[in-house]
Amino acid sequence: MKILNNGQLTILDIDKKVTLYGFVANKRKMGKLIFVDLRDRWGITQLVIKNKIKNFSKESILKVVGKVKERKDKNPNLKTGEIEIIVENIEILSFAKQLPFIIQDELEAKEDTRMHHRYLDLRRPIITNKIVIRHKFNKAIRYFLDNLDFLEIETPSLSKPTPEGARDFLVLTRKKDHFFALPQSPQIYKQLLMCSGFEKYFQIAKVFRDEDSRKDRQPEFTQLDLEMSYANEEDVQKIIEKMFKFVFKKLNKEIKIPFKRINYLEAIEKYGVDSPDIRFECFLYEVTKMFRNSSFNLFKNSSSVKFIHCYEILTKKQILQLKEVAMKNGSKNLIWGFIDNNYEGPAYKFFKNEMKLIEKKFNLNKGTFLFIGDNYKLTTKSLGAIRIKLNEFFNWTKNKNDELVWILNWPLFEYDENLKKYIPSHHPFTSPTKDSIKDFDLNKNKAKARAYDIVMNGYEIGSGSVRISNLEIQKRMFEAIGLNKQEYNQKFGFFLESFNYGFPPHAGIALGIDRIVMLLTNSKSIREVIAFPKNPNGIAVMEKSPTKIIEKN
Amino acid sequence: MKILNNGQLTILDIDKKVTLYGFVANKRKMGKLIFVDLRDRWGITQLVIKNKIKNFSKESILKVVGKVKERKDKNPNLKTGEIEIIVENIEILSFAKQLPFIIQDELEAKEDTRMHHRYLDLRRPIITNKIVIRHKFNKAIRYFLDNLDFLEIETPSLSKPTPEGARDFLVLTRKKDHFFALPQSPQIYKQLLMCSGFEKYFQIAKVFRDEDSRKDRQPEFTQLDLEMSYANEEDVQKIIEKMFKFVFKKLNKEIKIPFKRINYLEAIEKYGVDSPDIRFECFLYEVTKMFRNSSFNLFKNSSSVKFIHCYEILTKKQILQLKEVAMKNGSKNLIWGFIDNNYEGPAYKFFKNEMKLIEKKFNLNKGTFLFIGDNYKLTTKSLGAIRIKLNEFFNWTKNKNDELVWILNWPLFEYDENLKKYIPSHHPFTSPTKDSIKDFDLNKNKAKARAYDIVMNGYEIGSGSVRISNLEIQKRMFEAIGLNKQEYNQKFGFFLESFNYGFPPHAGIALGIDRIVMLLTNSKSIREVIAFPKNPNGIAVMEKSPTKIIEKN
Repeated sequence: MKILNNGQLTILDIDKKVTLYGFVANKRKMGKLIFVDLRDRWGITQLVIKNKIKNFSKESILKVVGKVKERKDKNPNLKTGEIEIIVENIEILSFAKQLPFIIQDELEAKEDTRMHHRYLDLRRPIITNKIVIRHKFNKAIRYFLDNLDFLEIETPSLSKPTPEGARDFLVLTRKKDHFFALPQSPQIYKQLLMCSGFEKYFQIAKVFRDEDSRKDRQPEFTQLDLEMSYANEEDVQKIIEKMFKFVFKKLNKEIKIPFKRINYLEAIEKYGVDSPDIRFECFLYEVTKMFRNSSFNLFKNSSSVKFIHCYEILTKKQILQLKEVAMKNGSKNLIWGFIDNNYEGPAYKFFKNEMKLIEKKFNLNKGTFLFIGDNYKLTTKSLGAIRIKLNEFFNWTKNKNDELVWILNWPLFEYDENLKKYIPSHHPFTSPTKDSIKDFDLNKNKAKARAYDIVMNGYEIGSGSVRISNLEIQKRMFEAIGLNKQEYNQKFGFFLESFNYGFPPHAGIALGIDRIVMLLTNSKSIREVIAFPKNPNGIAVMEKSPTKIIEKN
Repeated sequence: MKILNNGQLTILDIDKKVTLYGFVANKRKMGKLIFVDLRDRWGITQLVIKNKIKNFSKESILKVVGKVKERKDKNPNLKTGEIEIIVENIEILSFAKQLPFIIQDELEAKEDTRMHHRYLDLRRPIITNKIVIRHKFNKAIRYFLDNLDFLEIETPSLSKPTPEGARDFLVLTRKKDHFFALPQSPQIYKQLLMCSGFEKYFQIAKVFRDEDSRKDRQPEFTQLDLEMSYANEEDVQKIIEKMFKFVFKKLNKEIKIPFKRINYLEAIEKYGVDSPDIRFECFLYEVTKMFRNSSFNLFKNSSSVKFIHCYEILTKKQILQLKEVAMKNGSKNLIWGFIDNNYEGPAYKFFKNEMKLIEKKFNLNKGTFLFIGDNYKLTTKSLGAIRIKLNEFFNWTKNKNDELVWILNWPLFEYDENLKKYIPSHHPFTSPTKDSIKDFDLNKNKAKARAYDIVMNGYEIGSGSVRISNLEIQKRMFEAIGLNKQEYNQKFGFFLESFNYGFPPHAGIALGIDRIVMLLTNSKSIREVIAFPKNPNGIAVMEKSPTKIIEKN
């Protein structure tokens, strides 16, 4: 068995005889000597080989026996940089042929090539490290929650198809037309565990979602699923905050708690999105009324006119890119203007008077203005997306600390334009607020939820709520989203029955681990932090799966 | 939030004002007082209620505020048995209707009824405790392995269908006739992680098997999957032994290491099975030669005659039951005889002379003899099953310590009578032994594997091997099991390719967590230690799944 690793030997080990194993990361010939960087997960050790010349290639696997010696040209960037191994015996355990790409942190290779040989991609120290951090992250979570007496309990992966069945992955069974579904969340099971009296449950669980093919798809995710009895929203939030504090510390990072709390409506109003990146300003400003009597008809007739402002002067190309962003988000009406040495852009052409008032009111006399006039939803959505794009241009968040924020006071329902009906903003197990209980099913557009999302650096990383623990309210909720008695009994009858036997009040949350680790490791995609991910089309390019099967016997 | 639990208050808390939450486990009226046992996961606290009479049923959920007082009639069996709570305020958080069964450890209810209301079944302290032990078991494993620098890495649940596809659960995708498969094991992924240089990997992983409907089915299992580079069989075995030592200690149990090691052939010869329960003797004895010239033709013509002996005298009913066991295992020829005060049974009728010799040779002059004469496979199999049944009769293993044993020196292949071909004894990634490498594909019946199983109390709980890490050997192995080049390239091409880029020698193991926890908690079935199991027919009776779905849009 391998005893020593390649990040371990120091000046204190001089003259020891050691056995090392690893990959040939590098190989340089100098006269009659060969210098090899021998790599493993823990680091690199320099080997010096003379008289033992064997033919081996980069990434071949060696077992060497040799003596530790002090190096003349020390390498301060390397943990083992003060020593080298004078090799006495060398064995090539596995010979590597020509590789499809070089094993190094900086790489030009296309993602598809890397993913095709993901087992080689994972050798790159920068990628190896992401997987190590993922391990440490999960370990720290488990340690923290176990310490608070939470139990990790596994719930079924072969579960019952849900009413939002369009996103279910279905599993064939031996009985014709009968399917299991892979869970989109352990929601019902974890609530039943509260009914069982476990009180404090968590699970690092695989969940699945068969997304529409238009989206960047990763069909399986890992989430931290958590539920507590006799807890309210503040209780859950506090535990999660403490957990992040603990986990960040374990990863040698800092985070301040408590996190900021922003109301859902304020987030939309100020940032244009429900998952704001609060690490930079560049807020949305409200100016609808100022255009009420404008000669600029487009804005005069818009129900919502807003702008954002940044102190940078954009290039024409950047403006074009922002127009595209607005278009993608449904708005054709991006009007820009800027003040540099002089005044430029359509804003100063079409509504110069209003601009003067705006400059004064908001005390802005330099930089770029970006206006959208549309309905409230499109105006905020478009400007929210433009705000994010501006940060891409100027990288304001570079070197900024991570920022987590709770989004509170959610609506209980949202209106789905395609389905032409109200659907739950979160899911149908979310409790209405005390004020909404009496009439949430009658005033759906006003009903509020006891829900809370958590956002990190502009990404929604988790979503939780106080749950319904009362049979009548749960039935009213199912009816409110359009399930009749027969339908909800067929789909949720077993769950509804459990409410009859004593069901503690409870609340919980689910956090997206892939996404959090992506942010913690400064990765561009969750694919980077999944050992064997699917590509953006949901295909495993390495294994070539899904696979065609004509018949199952 | 709930601060105190119901297993916590002691005599040191006298006169404190406390708030408690929990289920009404019991309720007794005595004059004007009501005594309530308030239960949660941690224990029971006695409440005394006067003047606050409210109507609540057993299993309803209460929130009470009251004062801790010393009890007159102390209960030494209860952690909180020295105190009680004089209730000042009481709130019924959830009212329980009539329950389908009583929440107590001893229960008459049928398993189906319990599973139908598994969330209530889980409230029974004996069952709650099994789930708690499962949590502690997994936690201890993770702690131990992390300490040795193993990384827990998640591998895909949506993976590629395998050649042994008949047991794959297939997952529908949006592309017609194209499927993912749920993994029967992360075998290939974990080997690729060795190719990536992670060196020490583990995972507590969900795996799936779509068993034939004749078997007691649990379609999803949890396994501890582990793999190490630069390790041989002994290295893996030692780590697993240390792990068990550690985990047992955490569960307040004892286990001696190293475990016994028995060769596969010896296990069959001595115990009749490859997963022997070594906690009791009652071995199989070999007597074929002694019948070579017998007048008892049945045994004279059998290629293998063996017997087992126990000191108990069996009843006629028990003998009949053993005959059934032999029949089930393919052998009709169970011949018994016993010595009590006199000699009885067919053995003494049909081959009295041989019996005299046998008594003498094995020094047995009391108890029951049970003979089978058949071919080697049926003789050993039947007697092995009879041996287990005898232990069921006499409970020799009651109160015995757990015994773990390694089974070594496995054949590389076994002949499948149905398929009429050799299949791998374990799987096609198992390395042949050094002696077998040259001709394992030519002498399949003699080839040996670098495989090791681990057995606990007569149950196989894990299986491991040194893996093939050489391309040519892996190809020969695929061909040996009947895959031609096109087939193995189509199914395993991506894996074979990885052998070209440096692949460390490696070995590993997979342990069945459900089964180990079943044994640790003295449970009769793995269903007891799975929070929401399927029934023996593979059906979730609570959720009523698999579910009929005519069309997926």
